[in-house]
Amino acid sequence: MAEPVKLIGAFGSPFVHRAEVALRLKGVPFELILEDLNNKSELLLKHNPIHKTVPVLLHGDRPAVLESLLIVEYVDEAFDGPPLLPADPYERAMARFWAQFIEQKCSRPFWMAVWLDDGEAREGFVRDTKENLALLEARLQGKRFFAGDAVGLVGAGEFPALRRWAEDYTSDATVVACLPPREQLAAHFAGKKDRIKLAVNAMVGRA
Amino acid sequence: MAEPVKLIGAFGSPFVHRAEVALRLKGVPFELILEDLNNKSELLLKHNPIHKTVPVLLHGDRPAVLESLLIVEYVDEAFDGPPLLPADPYERAMARFWAQFIEQKCSRPFWMAVWLDDGEAREGFVRDTKENLALLEARLQGKRFFAGDAVGLVGAGEFPALRRWAEDYTSDATVVACLPPREQLAAHFAGKKDRIKLAVNAMVGRA
Repeated sequence: MAEPVKLIGAFGSPFVHRAEVALRLKGVPFELILEDLNNKSELLLKHNPIHKTVPVLLHGDRPAVLESLLIVEYVDEAFDGPPLLPADPYERAMARFWAQFIEQKCSRPFWMAVWLDDGEAREGFVRDTKENLALLEARLQGKRFFAGDAVGLVGAGEFPALRRWAEDYTSDATVVACLPPREQLAAHFAGKKDRIKLAVNAMVGRA
Repeated sequence: MAEPVKLIGAFGSPFVHRAEVALRLKGVPFELILEDLNNKSELLLKHNPIHKTVPVLLHGDRPAVLESLLIVEYVDEAFDGPPLLPADPYERAMARFWAQFIEQKCSRPFWMAVWLDDGEAREGFVRDTKENLALLEARLQGKRFFAGDAVGLVGAGEFPALRRWAEDYTSDATVVACLPPREQLAAHFAGKKDRIKLAVNAMVGRA
């Protein structure tokens, strides 16, 4: 009998989305356990005492697999099903590079810009986000997905190729199954907006 | 005939060391091109226009493979030779996790603490480094290397298991071939100490 797979997640987390899509694309049955991140469960703290973050993947009795991109690679390697990363070592290296690039160079400055008040620091993050999205846009020219014509590992306006990618990505039936209703997601972020804005502005010294 | 392999590096870089060790452990012949990072070459800027950092791996005519941990994985997958990562998917996930952990949670605060002037910020980085080294230390208890009994992917004293690991790692003949002479390394860091200290102190608002 297959060992049970559990994914500890939280509503609205793009990192959890990544892990959930990987499991669904691969066709792995799993139980999704949603955390309240303001009141973390014993289960989460037990399995991720270092970072205390989601997603956390539990496969049988092994200690947890952590970090969303590492979970994607683990799911790809540990289970049968359609490949998530390309087979060719060079193409795999490119997929890993662009996944990290999106995380570190696009998502990070994007969210900082979202939550910061207007000012020099915010402008810097907007500029970084746009410059780095332009590099992604160039990478995506003429391709349907980052690594071929099927949904794969990586995921992220003025940017037509990126817009088209986003449309194609969010049209995929497996992905749709992991997407929360738009209104519910908007309400979720609206609910924590003030707290996050305060924290982020304090981080760049605008308390 | 095998496609030529070139590694663009720089003296004293632990990231370049990581890529160089991977190529040597794997038995891949390669040309090492050392950069002056104060005066970056056309070759480096052409192949890594995004980050402008080393190491950069060139394999045949393909665009460069960037980021030291991704280079290690690429070298492991693209060439024959002894495996660098464990074969088991779960053990591979653990190796990747601890490699990232060392980079983000140990090396980063360690170097911040090295270059910062005394003060609250420096104390925070010292505390982070020690707490995270303690987690590594616990992980390493009873094992010779992080993923078995042969030199593998991950690399980083009060910490006896880490000390022993470091001794074993730096006794490996392949690793020794990539290590610069200690005096030369010390002189290298002494030469750029003032400039780095200035930049790092400015970063935490102690200009």
